Amino acid sequence: MADQVSGHMTPEELRRYGRQVVDWIADYQEKIESFPVLSQVSPGEIRAQLPAHPPERGERFEAILTDVDQVIMPGVTHWQHPSFFAYYPANASGPAILADLLSAGLGVQGMAWATSPACTELEQHMLDWLAELLGLPVAFRFTRPDGTDGNGGGVIQDTASTANLTAVLAALHRATGGAARRDGLTGRYAVYASSQGNSSIPKAVIMAGLGEGTLRTVDVDPATQALDPARLRRLIEADRAAGVIPVLVVASVGTTSTSAVDPVQAIGRICREHGVWLHVDAAYAGVAAVCPELRWLNDGLEHADSFCTNPHKWLLTNFDCDAFYVADRSALLGALSILPEYLRNAATESGAVVDYRDWHIQLGRRFRALKLWAVIRWYGAEGLRAHIRRHVAAAADLASWVAADERFEVVAPHPLSLVCFRLRGPDGPNEGLLARLNETGEIYLTHTRVNGAYTLRLAIGGTHTEHRHVERAWQLIQQIASSMREG
Amino acid sequence: MADQVSGHMTPEELRRYGRQVVDWIADYQEKIESFPVLSQVSPGEIRAQLPAHPPERGERFEAILTDVDQVIMPGVTHWQHPSFFAYYPANASGPAILADLLSAGLGVQGMAWATSPACTELEQHMLDWLAELLGLPVAFRFTRPDGTDGNGGGVIQDTASTANLTAVLAALHRATGGAARRDGLTGRYAVYASSQGNSSIPKAVIMAGLGEGTLRTVDVDPATQALDPARLRRLIEADRAAGVIPVLVVASVGTTSTSAVDPVQAIGRICREHGVWLHVDAAYAGVAAVCPELRWLNDGLEHADSFCTNPHKWLLTNFDCDAFYVADRSALLGALSILPEYLRNAATESGAVVDYRDWHIQLGRRFRALKLWAVIRWYGAEGLRAHIRRHVAAAADLASWVAADERFEVVAPHPLSLVCFRLRGPDGPNEGLLARLNETGEIYLTHTRVNGAYTLRLAIGGTHTEHRHVERAWQLIQQIASSMREG
Repeated sequence: MADQVSGHMTPEELRRYGRQVVDWIADYQEKIESFPVLSQVSPGEIRAQLPAHPPERGERFEAILTDVDQVIMPGVTHWQHPSFFAYYPANASGPAILADLLSAGLGVQGMAWATSPACTELEQHMLDWLAELLGLPVAFRFTRPDGTDGNGGGVIQDTASTANLTAVLAALHRATGGAARRDGLTGRYAVYASSQGNSSIPKAVIMAGLGEGTLRTVDVDPATQALDPARLRRLIEADRAAGVIPVLVVASVGTTSTSAVDPVQAIGRICREHGVWLHVDAAYAGVAAVCPELRWLNDGLEHADSFCTNPHKWLLTNFDCDAFYVADRSALLGALSILPEYLRNAATESGAVVDYRDWHIQLGRRFRALKLWAVIRWYGAEGLRAHIRRHVAAAADLASWVAADERFEVVAPHPLSLVCFRLRGPDGPNEGLLARLNETGEIYLTHTRVNGAYTLRLAIGGTHTEHRHVERAWQLIQQIASSMREG
Repeated sequence: MADQVSGHMTPEELRRYGRQVVDWIADYQEKIESFPVLSQVSPGEIRAQLPAHPPERGERFEAILTDVDQVIMPGVTHWQHPSFFAYYPANASGPAILADLLSAGLGVQGMAWATSPACTELEQHMLDWLAELLGLPVAFRFTRPDGTDGNGGGVIQDTASTANLTAVLAALHRATGGAARRDGLTGRYAVYASSQGNSSIPKAVIMAGLGEGTLRTVDVDPATQALDPARLRRLIEADRAAGVIPVLVVASVGTTSTSAVDPVQAIGRICREHGVWLHVDAAYAGVAAVCPELRWLNDGLEHADSFCTNPHKWLLTNFDCDAFYVADRSALLGALSILPEYLRNAATESGAVVDYRDWHIQLGRRFRALKLWAVIRWYGAEGLRAHIRRHVAAAADLASWVAADERFEVVAPHPLSLVCFRLRGPDGPNEGLLARLNETGEIYLTHTRVNGAYTLRLAIGGTHTEHRHVERAWQLIQQIASSMREG
């Protein structure tokens, strides 16, 4: 029973139940392949098993753990299952889990430097470390390699969605010389992204008050699924001729649909020429630049005003952890800084510190840098590279197997760890194939459309996904395709 | 050393290091009062101790834990110290820490119902439980007491800042009949909040593209610091007469500065009359309605279109956990829904499920309902009430001690657990008093201005804050005030 005086869990109880939870997670990791990847429950099935009313009196922690197993687990889709190939991965790892636990135990709130200096300074330092690991332009660092202070820097945002919105707001601030903040959106503006940009881009445009009509969807090259810079140039020139202000271009490095990589170098030159903010959304793919042989992913990034990539997708750092960088933080701070009396403090007034609350939408923030620190130290650069390389190699093999099977076609380039493929011919059999694959519970894939055609996506990248899991997935795909042909 | 094959932490290593981290947290809780509450480091001091470059090879987890103690801890301001009286509290608790650990171990991403049904359904259920515990209007529940489905519901947002922005976006959608999303902000709009509203309100107005000039700052009654509804009515009427569209009113229940409570009942009638969205920001105070004797905090909430309160402040649930409710979700979903091909799935198409990605800014989301579930079950309603009551009683005592000392004055009402007070006379000695109190390391307070005068805030509400900590704080305040007079 809970302590009857205060109801709080005592340190001794925390030790006891903490061990149980740690063991629960280790057990889960050991037996995860025994669960169906995709939850098989129907809508409402989990809620129906929960008591209608909250308890009046406290319960034992054991009761909660029992219900996790009996009530919750059947409703879990196992993102950490090595045969989870849907969407993009959401990497968890031991060091990240434990560092996040430390963060929860410390319970600090890092809205300003003064509210926990280590929370801010470790984050600044980890974002600089990550910039070095990925070979990002020096402009994105707080501290340049020569030890001098730069104008840029990075921050941990929760998601690339929020990072993309933040980029829109900073770009609007710069494009309007601060007038947007003061007077609202009184002019005519345009934002540009490829038709394959993530849904968070139109969402950011809407949330920023620009209206959907502001977004210019730039056509892609059908073969590469990458933005066509000639079309971008024409759109920007037409807008300027019509008195519309081009605010920003969002280039995607690794689109959600097919992992297409926009030509950032060419886009960047157009942006420079026209004074347009360039934001590079590399949510999934950006972290792969930890491998020198994949550093072409950064081509043109020297033209970018902002950049984001998600260690929580494919770099072993538990969700949420999006790394968002700006080359010059003045527009960002101009757009988002607010200093009410109750947040004033000597360190802020001195100008000698970073107050991260002015770098994003939220005021409050957790100590998320701890998990990035633990991941980088536990794996080291070589461990991180090995993780990425394992999946890139497996994807290359998968693509070669698909190409060698005449029933199938690979429908888009596969530069990293995502392979998009389909049964040749109509959509129907492909929809059937996906449904039957996911019903097996052995693997979980999702779909997209490429040049209009229904396409299966197999995204490799789980923390514990090895070559054998990809082999088994392909075996299963072939088997079900055969049985469908026969059936 | 890390596993040399894959670099991943094995389940056995996770058990070993997991126990070490759990013990570290339990030890921290046992010795937390030996740390200075407010970190005493200078800007740059923490960063200077970190290696300039990330490691090439992986390190042992023990090395990370050692550096947490030696490098990080001196830079930590101890939000969980029972004598942390600054800002508002950020409650951590054993059951929340361990449930959050479970969430990290599961590593699911709940952007849609289908991506982990339990993540969505437990969250819906917990938001209904919380609505019942706080006695919120039935309109905010997914499931009404009679078992039928409602049009409203709740969602966990990260912070009240994000919730307030979400409310602005939903209100804009309704006020413009959806035109804002399509065409941007083409009209003239107004948003209303008291001069004491949180800084996230102007920030939300700016981020939504409305411009600072859109925000009407409504004067407060100097005695109560609460919004004057007669002034609000005059502002709305003047705007309407001038062709400006009133979009929303943000009423504060428990302002950040002094915990003032706006007259929601009177404000709500004005909003109803003029068809204006009413959002109630009860970030700190809302959870106190778990106590029936404090349920007056909900007066007028039946007029609110949206409402938010933060279990992560004063209801024992680790950051981040803001509970955001809408009475009718159509405007919210109209403002924020986007469905690209790669997120389509049968459950979403059926309309039978909630996809929480359409309820907020982010796409990805963690399984945060687990910690709210663990907190409500571990403490039970009576444990939660005892937690709130302990602090409300201590604040009443503190206010009486301040009032009885003729050197001091209590400068604002103290309906809950925040007491605002100052030395009578000029600001200077108050600034000196605050600085000297915080230098002791024994307690940590922050300040505000009330009717222009520099004022100390003592916010009670830490998980482990007991009456004796408040007694000691007052003793220290008196001692330093005496020494200043003598010195």
